[in-house]
Amino acid sequence: MTAQEISKAFVQHYYTTMASNREGLMGLYGDESVLTLETSECRGRNQIMEKILALTYQKIQHDITSIDHQMISSDSVLVVVTGRLKTDDDPPNSFTQTFVLRQGSGGIFIANEVFRVILHNN
Amino acid sequence: MTAQEISKAFVQHYYTTMASNREGLMGLYGDESVLTLETSECRGRNQIMEKILALTYQKIQHDITSIDHQMISSDSVLVVVTGRLKTDDDPPNSFTQTFVLRQGSGGIFIANEVFRVILHNN
Repeated sequence: MTAQEISKAFVQHYYTTMASNREGLMGLYGDESVLTLETSECRGRNQIMEKILALTYQKIQHDITSIDHQMISSDSVLVVVTGRLKTDDDPPNSFTQTFVLRQGSGGIFIANEVFRVILHNN
Repeated sequence: MTAQEISKAFVQHYYTTMASNREGLMGLYGDESVLTLETSECRGRNQIMEKILALTYQKIQHDITSIDHQMISSDSVLVVVTGRLKTDDDPPNSFTQTFVLRQGSGGIFIANEVFRVILHNN
């Protein structure tokens, strides 16, 4: 698979799983994974899944606007997603989510992830 | 310097230079650098600087909302910036910009960069 194919397949899998079966995201993280979710930083699969499963929405829907990808090294791809996010009956918010996907012994996993809703204070 | 100090110092330097002296950004790119600027991809310092210097605005101002950083490897830091961008007399737009900063033999340079204005079509 090319980096572009990996990025597209990953993005589709990630957001479908996030919407339908959050527990299923566990297989995408490893012990070295780091997630920055707004101002929280979680390290390792267990801490990351605890954070994701504690999110309080019932329904979540992502509308993807852009997916960009670049190779970082022979085993790592940078993926940057922008779009809109709707949780439960709240109005939609723009978001950006950056992933570093890495080829590990057990397959591709999320080594780094940064999520931000686009909100400005003034 | 810690990864946090590097990220903050880099972000301040990058956006100040972008606003005051675009040519000065040249020192931040190397031959391996890759820039995705919206739908364009540029590779290497020369192609990247050609793209940056061809941008047609006279004035640019970035208001930074968030700076997140994570170590990717012993020599690379992921930096994700969100904020608002104003060019000339246009209304401000939200943007997100992701950098992979790498320690090279000549110092820290931008190995990977992805820039997107946050705009949705519908």
